Amino acid sequence: MGVILLSMKTVDLMLSARWVVPIEPSGAVLENHSLVIHDGRIVALVPTDQALTQFQPAEHQQFVEHALMPGLVNAHTHSPMTLLRGVADDMPLYEWLQQHIWPMEARHVSEEFAHDGSLLALAEQLRGGTTCFNDMYFFPEVTAKVTTQAGMRGSIGLLLIDFASAWASDANEYIQKGLDLYDSNKTEPLLSFCFAPHAPYSVSEDNLRRIKVLADELDLPIHMHVHETAQEVNEFQARFGMRPLEKLAQLGISGPNFLAVHMTQLTDAEIDFLAESGTHVLHCPEASLKLASGFCPVHRLQEAGVNVAIGTDGTASNNDLDMFGEMRTAALLGKGVSGNAAALPAETTLRMATLNSAVALGLADEIGSLVPGKAADVIAVDLSELESQPMTSPISHLVYAVGRHQVSDVWVAGRQLLRQRRLTSIDEADLRARIIEWQKRIAAARH
Amino acid sequence: MGVILLSMKTVDLMLSARWVVPIEPSGAVLENHSLVIHDGRIVALVPTDQALTQFQPAEHQQFVEHALMPGLVNAHTHSPMTLLRGVADDMPLYEWLQQHIWPMEARHVSEEFAHDGSLLALAEQLRGGTTCFNDMYFFPEVTAKVTTQAGMRGSIGLLLIDFASAWASDANEYIQKGLDLYDSNKTEPLLSFCFAPHAPYSVSEDNLRRIKVLADELDLPIHMHVHETAQEVNEFQARFGMRPLEKLAQLGISGPNFLAVHMTQLTDAEIDFLAESGTHVLHCPEASLKLASGFCPVHRLQEAGVNVAIGTDGTASNNDLDMFGEMRTAALLGKGVSGNAAALPAETTLRMATLNSAVALGLADEIGSLVPGKAADVIAVDLSELESQPMTSPISHLVYAVGRHQVSDVWVAGRQLLRQRRLTSIDEADLRARIIEWQKRIAAARH
Repeated sequence: MGVILLSMKTVDLMLSARWVVPIEPSGAVLENHSLVIHDGRIVALVPTDQALTQFQPAEHQQFVEHALMPGLVNAHTHSPMTLLRGVADDMPLYEWLQQHIWPMEARHVSEEFAHDGSLLALAEQLRGGTTCFNDMYFFPEVTAKVTTQAGMRGSIGLLLIDFASAWASDANEYIQKGLDLYDSNKTEPLLSFCFAPHAPYSVSEDNLRRIKVLADELDLPIHMHVHETAQEVNEFQARFGMRPLEKLAQLGISGPNFLAVHMTQLTDAEIDFLAESGTHVLHCPEASLKLASGFCPVHRLQEAGVNVAIGTDGTASNNDLDMFGEMRTAALLGKGVSGNAAALPAETTLRMATLNSAVALGLADEIGSLVPGKAADVIAVDLSELESQPMTSPISHLVYAVGRHQVSDVWVAGRQLLRQRRLTSIDEADLRARIIEWQKRIAAARH
Repeated sequence: MGVILLSMKTVDLMLSARWVVPIEPSGAVLENHSLVIHDGRIVALVPTDQALTQFQPAEHQQFVEHALMPGLVNAHTHSPMTLLRGVADDMPLYEWLQQHIWPMEARHVSEEFAHDGSLLALAEQLRGGTTCFNDMYFFPEVTAKVTTQAGMRGSIGLLLIDFASAWASDANEYIQKGLDLYDSNKTEPLLSFCFAPHAPYSVSEDNLRRIKVLADELDLPIHMHVHETAQEVNEFQARFGMRPLEKLAQLGISGPNFLAVHMTQLTDAEIDFLAESGTHVLHCPEASLKLASGFCPVHRLQEAGVNVAIGTDGTASNNDLDMFGEMRTAALLGKGVSGNAAALPAETTLRMATLNSAVALGLADEIGSLVPGKAADVIAVDLSELESQPMTSPISHLVYAVGRHQVSDVWVAGRQLLRQRRLTSIDEADLRARIIEWQKRIAAARH
């Protein structure tokens, strides 16, 4: 026994589970395996009996009725808007933006709004199994700070939009503040950054040229709403004589460093162009439905070879940050829209919400699958509920039957941020007090 | 004080809540109201301070962070199939039915299968806030018995399909067993019945004529899959020279006693016919998406005046019995398919899953809204979770943000069947043991 102990490797953490869904290889379900974690990274993923002879963990957690899988990666959201959940439903994009959201933002958005809204978004996402999110909003430095404080992983958008806001008065200030944020945080291990020009209709050509130069110089992705609605595309064509995607291509904005959100309006030629250029599509099915923006042709994109990732969009147009729900909607809608029930099978959909998102964000070496060497961004999903019975297929159930409340435990870079449904790095009582204040302010402003 | 007490009416139960969403009138949200219940029926719905002076309840439950609303009414399902959750995903209707579901049913379906599957379906539905369901399956007498034993409300289908099964060998036996079930249970207060011929392609014209005669004689509704896919409609047209709906109309099968499920293929003339005849449409958005069957034109149906109710369909094609999820999908998809973000607003969608279903089932005098005189089929939904914050609108949150696990308590006809998330009338340990046996049998048969 002493001999065996001497040869065992001491590690920080071992997670032993009934099922492990590593995402790579696609469709794999490992039974009675353990994930071994040290210094925030995955050291091994091996059968539990083998792990117990090879590793001596400082902490060992066992999940007898759970599936372990990589944390979900929310490819597109607007965290602070979580404070605007439910303020304006059942109306189309432009009316929603121009008559409700933008006036409400003009009144409320501030450093405090960004702080409290981001904190609520982090809490909701961690409780729902999301360990990384790709954000676009005002006061990104506040979202970045709250994210690192909570120990979550975030891809922070350096926002640019051609109107003055509480955060910045003009393009120069937007860009300068973005660059300052990047410079002072670029070595933060849990943060990454994208330039985030809002949309072709809300950022001028000149400003897009500036962003393109900076993105090339700093090798950062560009994250933008593109072809969200037919109206947007038609109006752009009337003004500029071409569709937005063509204009962006002219500006050199395409390729593996370009993340195009929504993309509900696409010709066959455009789909080919996206595939050939290696452009990523960030698909937000629930928001596109809720605003009746159109249908992203996900199956056709995938057949052409385009990397499609899944995001929730902001809470004001969804109205949640539920990546389990978003996966289900993506899988169901992908079949409905393509007329092909074999489109977006469960294992593909799980990959879209994990590895495909990581690929789009340039983080595939770090996250998106449970592979030794990657960061230990992991979630445990309790499959013992009656609603997950009988257990015919963990992958089917994770996509088609699980509710996000079944996420019991969450780790980011090996640190446990949700333990048996309790947040460990966010003070929930303090957060609730902050939300109540905002609820009063928002209600008062609406009356 | 003594005088006040003497004038107070003694009642069984008072439920006092922060919010009450009675469904009638549409869009109403009552704050700090109490539902007063006696002999299984709603006696009053009044402000809590008033209720406390007027009624002396034997039991008083307070829900300080909850919304009370009528129990959800699942307009179409196949309860015993809950044992087949996740056995066959990601394939179209005919392949799914002919190569997977029907062979699996031929092997497994029995009285015991119907019993255990129905019990799981009841448990899942009660835990998710559904208090009544409209069923179609083999061994309906078993589903009926389990339903009354659990104290739930069910509309039981008297099944007819033109092939032999473990339940019945031919049309005569199907019909006779259905009539026997009806005769021996027609006075059960929690049960109602529909004739349930499976579909125009699986039941002959002669047998449909027999059903029509019996339905008229007994004044029972007819519940049938109709126009589920384009393939079905095209094949029917090739065989009979007309579309199924026209054939049914020729047979007199239309009108307020006819419940047509799915209806993804509809011409303008057919929509007008449904409206004029008063036929009900039972919309199952998730199953129609999952099988890529097509899109039910819900908004156009509603504009024409058709009563559209919401159902989950069976778990083998969904893969859950989650009416909260189904409402959200219906609302989102209704906007996407119509291209109108104002279609299916939250209050309309809530009504579709409660009162519209009750109307379709002929139960609108009993259930579907919280109105004095109706049965006390009520659910409490906990809105205190972070995912329901800030509280901007209970109705918006109930449709767009709530998860079914937030259902804390459920009553059917005044009897509490879920108490703080615990089932009171179903032995969960016994149910789990039964499911594990089925899991083994189904797995063994697949290998």
